[in-house]
Amino acid sequence: MARKIILDCDPGHDDAVAIILAGGDPAIDLVGITTVGGNQTLPKVTRNALSVLRVARLTEVPVYAGCARPLVRKVEVAEAIHGDSGLDGVDLPEPVTEVGSRHAVDFIIDTIMNNAPNTITLVPTGPLTNIGMAVRKEPAIAERVQEVVLMGGGYHTGNWSAVAEFNIIVDPEAANIVFNEPWPLTMVGLDLTHQALATPAVEDQIGAIGSECSEFVLGLFGFFRKAYQEQQGFENPPVHDPCAVAYLIDPSVVSTRKAPLDVELRGEFTVGMTVADFRAPAPEGCTTQVAVQLDHQRFWDLVVNAIASVESR
Amino acid sequence: MARKIILDCDPGHDDAVAIILAGGDPAIDLVGITTVGGNQTLPKVTRNALSVLRVARLTEVPVYAGCARPLVRKVEVAEAIHGDSGLDGVDLPEPVTEVGSRHAVDFIIDTIMNNAPNTITLVPTGPLTNIGMAVRKEPAIAERVQEVVLMGGGYHTGNWSAVAEFNIIVDPEAANIVFNEPWPLTMVGLDLTHQALATPAVEDQIGAIGSECSEFVLGLFGFFRKAYQEQQGFENPPVHDPCAVAYLIDPSVVSTRKAPLDVELRGEFTVGMTVADFRAPAPEGCTTQVAVQLDHQRFWDLVVNAIASVESR
Amino acid sequence: MARKIILDCDPGHDDAVAIILAGGDPAIDLVGITTVGGNQTLPKVTRNALSVLRVARLTEVPVYAGCARPLVRKVEVAEAIHGDSGLDGVDLPEPVTEVGSRHAVDFIIDTIMNNAPNTITLVPTGPLTNIGMAVRKEPAIAERVQEVVLMGGGYHTGNWSAVAEFNIIVDPEAANIVFNEPWPLTMVGLDLTHQALATPAVEDQIGAIGSECSEFVLGLFGFFRKAYQEQQGFENPPVHDPCAVAYLIDPSVVSTRKAPLDVELRGEFTVGMTVADFRAPAPEGCTTQVAVQLDHQRFWDLVVNAIASVESR
Amino acid sequence: MARKIILDCDPGHDDAVAIILAGGDPAIDLVGITTVGGNQTLPKVTRNALSVLRVARLTEVPVYAGCARPLVRKVEVAEAIHGDSGLDGVDLPEPVTEVGSRHAVDFIIDTIMNNAPNTITLVPTGPLTNIGMAVRKEPAIAERVQEVVLMGGGYHTGNWSAVAEFNIIVDPEAANIVFNEPWPLTMVGLDLTHQALATPAVEDQIGAIGSECSEFVLGLFGFFRKAYQEQQGFENPPVHDPCAVAYLIDPSVVSTRKAPLDVELRGEFTVGMTVADFRAPAPEGCTTQVAVQLDHQRFWDLVVNAIASVESR
Repeated sequence: MARKIILDCDPGHDDAVAIILAGGDPAIDLVGITTVGGNQTLPKVTRNALSVLRVARLTEVPVYAGCARPLVRKVEVAEAIHGDSGLDGVDLPEPVTEVGSRHAVDFIIDTIMNNAPNTITLVPTGPLTNIGMAVRKEPAIAERVQEVVLMGGGYHTGNWSAVAEFNIIVDPEAANIVFNEPWPLTMVGLDLTHQALATPAVEDQIGAIGSECSEFVLGLFGFFRKAYQEQQGFENPPVHDPCAVAYLIDPSVVSTRKAPLDVELRGEFTVGMTVADFRAPAPEGCTTQVAVQLDHQRFWDLVVNAIASVESR
Repeated sequence: MARKIILDCDPGHDDAVAIILAGGDPAIDLVGITTVGGNQTLPKVTRNALSVLRVARLTEVPVYAGCARPLVRKVEVAEAIHGDSGLDGVDLPEPVTEVGSRHAVDFIIDTIMNNAPNTITLVPTGPLTNIGMAVRKEPAIAERVQEVVLMGGGYHTGNWSAVAEFNIIVDPEAANIVFNEPWPLTMVGLDLTHQALATPAVEDQIGAIGSECSEFVLGLFGFFRKAYQEQQGFENPPVHDPCAVAYLIDPSVVSTRKAPLDVELRGEFTVGMTVADFRAPAPEGCTTQVAVQLDHQRFWDLVVNAIASVESR
Repeated sequence: MARKIILDCDPGHDDAVAIILAGGDPAIDLVGITTVGGNQTLPKVTRNALSVLRVARLTEVPVYAGCARPLVRKVEVAEAIHGDSGLDGVDLPEPVTEVGSRHAVDFIIDTIMNNAPNTITLVPTGPLTNIGMAVRKEPAIAERVQEVVLMGGGYHTGNWSAVAEFNIIVDPEAANIVFNEPWPLTMVGLDLTHQALATPAVEDQIGAIGSECSEFVLGLFGFFRKAYQEQQGFENPPVHDPCAVAYLIDPSVVSTRKAPLDVELRGEFTVGMTVADFRAPAPEGCTTQVAVQLDHQRFWDLVVNAIASVESR
Repeated sequence: MARKIILDCDPGHDDAVAIILAGGDPAIDLVGITTVGGNQTLPKVTRNALSVLRVARLTEVPVYAGCARPLVRKVEVAEAIHGDSGLDGVDLPEPVTEVGSRHAVDFIIDTIMNNAPNTITLVPTGPLTNIGMAVRKEPAIAERVQEVVLMGGGYHTGNWSAVAEFNIIVDPEAANIVFNEPWPLTMVGLDLTHQALATPAVEDQIGAIGSECSEFVLGLFGFFRKAYQEQQGFENPPVHDPCAVAYLIDPSVVSTRKAPLDVELRGEFTVGMTVADFRAPAPEGCTTQVAVQLDHQRFWDLVVNAIASVESR
């Protein structure tokens, strides 16, 4: 049976690919998309989500807008990486659907509470503001959700500071909430996603599809490649967010390791760091784990297949 | 015209008096009570609110339960001050009404958004979790609310640490949110409320009423007096929360001073401190002020009148 | 018998007055001056100390240079208050003596260890770097010193931030060390020194002396007045540092209150705050106290007499 | 020509091996040993240093005692790892020499200032209190020292917390000072020293020497092995401190990587972490580097040769 997920995202180039993968793989039932201010402002990423759904022929998936800014800290967007639109590099098609009237936080709560226990998985790929708000508003979701598989953080890798990743450092208080709830949590962090490089060979695979959607993805990769070359010295851009989805489709694509995790809120050089304790085997009952190793080829095969499936919808 | 207020509270002995004052004074239109985990757990303080409304013959006032715990920090209740029930010292009557089905955060948002701009005042007298959640869920309330008059903090006085007050230190992140929104904010802190002592003379005034409600209040003061003597070395207990309501009834009862305010989140000895900057006159456009001086007699006259008015309802 | 003190200072206008007072009052035996980077750089304040000793005819007092910068934080000087020289407003006379060859830290240690126990008092009126270094290098001084009477901090008053004073905030780690040693410590903070205003009446008293030294002090006050008017909105400048010396000459000039004290190192808004806990009577064995109330007239009489005594040396 | 080094240590099992290596290899001229409170109290580690010098027939090397406790934080010793004596596992011989009369801080300063520029290397293998004090007392040593090669920290490894190492976390303020001076600094951290395992094969090599000193080292390793098995889950104990000495004897034994470094002072989970920024190539003029890869066999050959050389002295 397909896994029911809510994708909580801030598209964003790699979020767009995560949407296409989640909507295109039969192992996933994408019950809704929620948006959060992050890579760009909330209005921009919400509109981007709707546009991507049009390109991916997934217009039946509802979209709900959530929090516009972090819980405590000031807003910070990743314009240098995602451009002014949040999805620079392509001509974004006008959305053909509209954002839902409910708040994302309420959609998350309602979906979890109205489905059977342990049947809804949360897949956050942006700042964790919506998820943190949801579990504080309705604490019962912590026991009722199936699991949380998030893209963010890194146990030995940072991008927005020496040791912190963008999604976590922009709203560390929300991340601290999410990392400390009792739900099973998998952190798909930079240690893993920096292995998910969109190499020329990957682009060739995608190019061979020759569809509107594949061209759209290549357009995204073109901009993303340039941004990562200029901003972070990467030759090929790491495509973070679909890794979290891929783990849900096929856990063998992403190996993991259990470890206690916490989020630093107060350090001068370490605020927003996801601190993993590897000093000993994870204690009995440890509910948190980190993604360690990516099967690059099988990961991209999943993505390519999802892109290819769009035309047949 | 009566001021429309939402009392966001955690009864609590002094919260109970604040409810009686807000419901009994014609200058105030108490449109609803929202509850938050603080002096005791959320279920207890919510039940307490309903019981107090029965005693005060205010059963038409709706009550909505809110957040059970602080945004980031662990729960801490003030059992040493308020007892196991949160209202120790009296036989609490069974509630005759029920808590509303909406979440307090949504009641706050809906009330502000569905009333005319600048007509709803928020009066938080507990931890600021609900208010912080509300303005993050619906940022538009920040411009639409009339003002926020809160009991909490202190510019030169602490009770839960050397320099921090209970309501702020138990959820400093929420307080930080609330203190940094652009709404007009009055902090009625310990500097002011430590002047609101329930002296024997005050008890005599209340005792002279000779009603069920006056006996209820005296029962509360009896326990509160003992708790403050034993825990904080007070001879007469400070009755904090009604001071915020009194300021709204008659601003001349509470003198104020404008000053920039912020809430410390990271100090070892100062976490939860409300930092006021008095080094210079408050800058043009400063939206925050602190309560400085209480007119003790006129304050208690307001409270006594409100207690006396219960019988006539 | 005169109290033996080491004045650890960073002249600085008010430090200069402290030197004149300490050297001119028979109740004090000024066994040495040590200097520390603070109001200005170490070379400037050291030269200033030598110049002031010449003006005050105290050239027999040895001067030792100490630490040029705070333990951990970057250097910050108070040029807006003390000018480019650290003593702007007067023509500084060339020193006629030279700085000693020992390091201030060693002079402090040696003086305390080589005199009888409980006979040497430390009077720091600048950042506490030298004193912190001394007690870490030779922990035995903590039990052997008579007491520490320092100008710095404030329990309810700040100048370099809303709640922190210059001497403490520029080297809070050193202050934290000094405030946590077991020696008797009196904090003469801004709460007290903002009462030590150099009013026109004070200036008239000093002007009536009509000596080189009195003219020198009036020159300092002229610049200091202007700086405090422009920088901190004072009509008359507070002359901080001699208050600590005055307390040693005659404790009845400065009333005090015992309270636990600590220095905040980690706050965002409160770093460098001297946190006093007034919630309860100071515990048995509390070794720290704060200065509360100044006898303005008697304080200035001490200073005026000390200035007047210079001519007779 | 032999490299002149001062070994600033807190013996400590691995410090003892570092002393034997430094004293026994012709590439090193051990001009003095300074001690610091760390693995055990200052008196214990100082006596241990003298005892080790006797065993290693290095009694001509002077020893100076330094700081007994960290700059700001409370004392913490590593008794679970090093035992009550600091060198449990062997019968410590009585010292035959005495500790020098100068303070370690002054010995460090004098040695650097009285030798030619760039000829003295500091090798701290304990908390960095002495070194931090020295450079604050005499800032000129920062430009005059040849380099600092320290054992401590870790860029991806912790032992005293998830992300911090003992030497740094017990005195992070001192470490922060040392890491921010302009001298060339090599951090030989846990990432490297966890490769320096005393395997049975290593013990066999040492055992084959069959001397008093080799038996002494084996005794140390026996206790150390047990402590690391029980406390940190190691099969073979990591022998940290001699790695820093080995790097100076033959840099090719320890590969390094340049990176900006800083020491976290304020984090809740990260205090004492040595934060390395690997996001980009180290900037022009970067003076700090971390040890990355150990040549295990060649490292132990150096140690074995040094132990073997003792008998010939």
